Amino acid sequence: MNTHFASIITIGDELLIGQVVDTNSAWMAQELNKIGIPVKHRIAVGDVWEDIWYALDEESKHASIILITGGLGPTSDDITKPLLCKYFGGKLITDEATLAFVKNLFENVFKRPLLDVNLKQAEVPDVCTVLKNERGTAPGMMFEKDGKVFISMPGVPHEMKWIMTNEVLPMLPSKFKAAVIEHRTLLTASIGESFLADLVKEEEAALPTFIKLAYLPNYGMVRLRLTASGDDKTELIEALNNHFQKFKERVKDFLVIDEDLPLEAVIGKLLKERGATLSTAESCTGGYMAHLITSVPGSSAYFKGSIVSYDNSIKTSLLNVPDTILQTVGAVSEETVRIMAESILKIMGTDYSIAVSGIMGPDGGTSAKPVGKVWIAVAKSGKTIAKSFDFRYDRARNINLTAVNALNMLRILICG
Amino acid sequence: MNTHFASIITIGDELLIGQVVDTNSAWMAQELNKIGIPVKHRIAVGDVWEDIWYALDEESKHASIILITGGLGPTSDDITKPLLCKYFGGKLITDEATLAFVKNLFENVFKRPLLDVNLKQAEVPDVCTVLKNERGTAPGMMFEKDGKVFISMPGVPHEMKWIMTNEVLPMLPSKFKAAVIEHRTLLTASIGESFLADLVKEEEAALPTFIKLAYLPNYGMVRLRLTASGDDKTELIEALNNHFQKFKERVKDFLVIDEDLPLEAVIGKLLKERGATLSTAESCTGGYMAHLITSVPGSSAYFKGSIVSYDNSIKTSLLNVPDTILQTVGAVSEETVRIMAESILKIMGTDYSIAVSGIMGPDGGTSAKPVGKVWIAVAKSGKTIAKSFDFRYDRARNINLTAVNALNMLRILICG
Repeated sequence: MNTHFASIITIGDELLIGQVVDTNSAWMAQELNKIGIPVKHRIAVGDVWEDIWYALDEESKHASIILITGGLGPTSDDITKPLLCKYFGGKLITDEATLAFVKNLFENVFKRPLLDVNLKQAEVPDVCTVLKNERGTAPGMMFEKDGKVFISMPGVPHEMKWIMTNEVLPMLPSKFKAAVIEHRTLLTASIGESFLADLVKEEEAALPTFIKLAYLPNYGMVRLRLTASGDDKTELIEALNNHFQKFKERVKDFLVIDEDLPLEAVIGKLLKERGATLSTAESCTGGYMAHLITSVPGSSAYFKGSIVSYDNSIKTSLLNVPDTILQTVGAVSEETVRIMAESILKIMGTDYSIAVSGIMGPDGGTSAKPVGKVWIAVAKSGKTIAKSFDFRYDRARNINLTAVNALNMLRILICG
Repeated sequence: MNTHFASIITIGDELLIGQVVDTNSAWMAQELNKIGIPVKHRIAVGDVWEDIWYALDEESKHASIILITGGLGPTSDDITKPLLCKYFGGKLITDEATLAFVKNLFENVFKRPLLDVNLKQAEVPDVCTVLKNERGTAPGMMFEKDGKVFISMPGVPHEMKWIMTNEVLPMLPSKFKAAVIEHRTLLTASIGESFLADLVKEEEAALPTFIKLAYLPNYGMVRLRLTASGDDKTELIEALNNHFQKFKERVKDFLVIDEDLPLEAVIGKLLKERGATLSTAESCTGGYMAHLITSVPGSSAYFKGSIVSYDNSIKTSLLNVPDTILQTVGAVSEETVRIMAESILKIMGTDYSIAVSGIMGPDGGTSAKPVGKVWIAVAKSGKTIAKSFDFRYDRARNINLTAVNALNMLRILICG
């Protein structure tokens, strides 16, 4: 098997001082894997001439396809274009198609005057193939050298994604005969990584060398991923499906879904299949559950809405939690989340509901109710289930853990 | 100036197939920068023996401090520990302190039986210094070789953060005389990157070589960052503050805040200063605005809650939007968001409110109201301001752009 690897170089000081989280690389890696091009390295360097140069030298030793993002903005901290020009031995010329596109964008879309720095965006090294960017002013550029392909794109996510989708991904398979790579994923809940490993140890031992197993724990759920790579697609898929089936059978008591879907999409699928609707009543998650649910395209088919009762007065006025309950057992209690869940079910007229209340931290904890203490209730007509959790740690993690556990409780209620 | 650089190596196939977004590196880079250790490279490699080995060789050429995350889980896809053992020429021994900690964790916290794989977590190379991990079962490990320090930590974010905060960051300055690095940030709104660059070109030209300028555009706002590095802290800060003041003066018409704070924290600050409260009525953002606002610790002091009226029936039943308006001008209209904003202001009894309604995509657009069309209203007693926006592109980006623009409209309303 002759595998062509890709390397991703991300350019920008903002990555090295941590001001920006790199979400581009994950997306690019996913897309490359789909067309059978595994990623060997991902490397981030600053806006420093010699570091970028070195990365180009170094990564071209390991990969046939070098994808570069960032460093193409109109401002002076961006040195990538002159560097690429020198690296590949060209000179900067104006690309007429890009120039026309940029001029049109400013005149008709942005409706703003065009500055000199914007005109410079249409300059490209004469040794590159220009890749169209319909989402911004900086075009992509492709260079070829010693049988390797170098592709430079802006770091703005939606611009990079447009160029990848429309220009790069359709073109790569014609240049490189890619290996076949197939993934299968099992999402499990209510079992820790080491218990899961113990559970599937026979299936794991039986895997051939061309199928790799990985455990991906995330917020109390664990994904099991099988990855097969080889030349013959038919054989590969047959073997993969075979082993996948055995893993699936073994973990069936903990299985959420046999697809690589986030839990919120699984919930959406279950509700759609049943023509059922959902609402949420949130306190400590502050709208995050509703956000997760509505991040799924098409969620308006089953999600009616949420009342975020962050302040206790809203729990009383809108969700009918009696003041006496808040004064006695408090907002973080089984009584409160039960009433919240049952109230929102009625108020929004939905088939299912979720309610949460807890202490997310860093402040607000007491010895009786420390940071991380959460009550969750899920309800349908005639049935409400409530459960308490003790998370620990930091605010963002507690919000996330609360939402994921609440969605999982709902999943169990829906599936019966 | 004798700068000691750090390099961050992230290990795990999940990073190279894009199943996980790496948020660790950004956090680590921020913390290292604070103590004067700039990051030279960030590199991600898979769970592949020779790739990890190569990364260790390579990064130790460029940096004095090599921080490694990932590859320490209890399952068999993790090969980092045996590799480190061999790389630094040691053998695996059981660390008694870690063993006692792991046993206690399973017995008293997890309340689950201890498996053999968990016991293995207490094994460490005899050539390392064990770094305590109070958040999980895999300890950190520090190795020293040829004047370089290598630190290996688990990839689980809250575990890594605990080890960094309690073990690594306090120790590094004693091993390396770090350079002084200082950042100053200006958050601007309502001006594009190239216009901003044009606006500050004189100030930029006047910068000494030890102060670097960077533009960080994000969702319609641009951060200007000045970074100074050198040996003499007093001199450095004086020069930096001087130049910072000049930039600040120049961009004053577009200035949101002169600190590196996200907009939601700026809003929190403004509300707290005024002892004022806020509520939101959300349609298309589906709870994301409330989530952003409540992601700030202490937000319960000023945020009372939200009604997410994802379904139109909820806009009518809870937010008093007349059915005739939904039938005539529709849910995505000035009329609708004005009523939503004024209703939620009264319902929750707050000083300020935000309401949004729009079409986020990918479906639901029409020629009159295409994907990306959004109406936003902000209100206080006696005054409501509404504005329409035309975003384009994808769902996640539209949700984000809507929230950021809404928060910025609120900021302008609060500041008058």
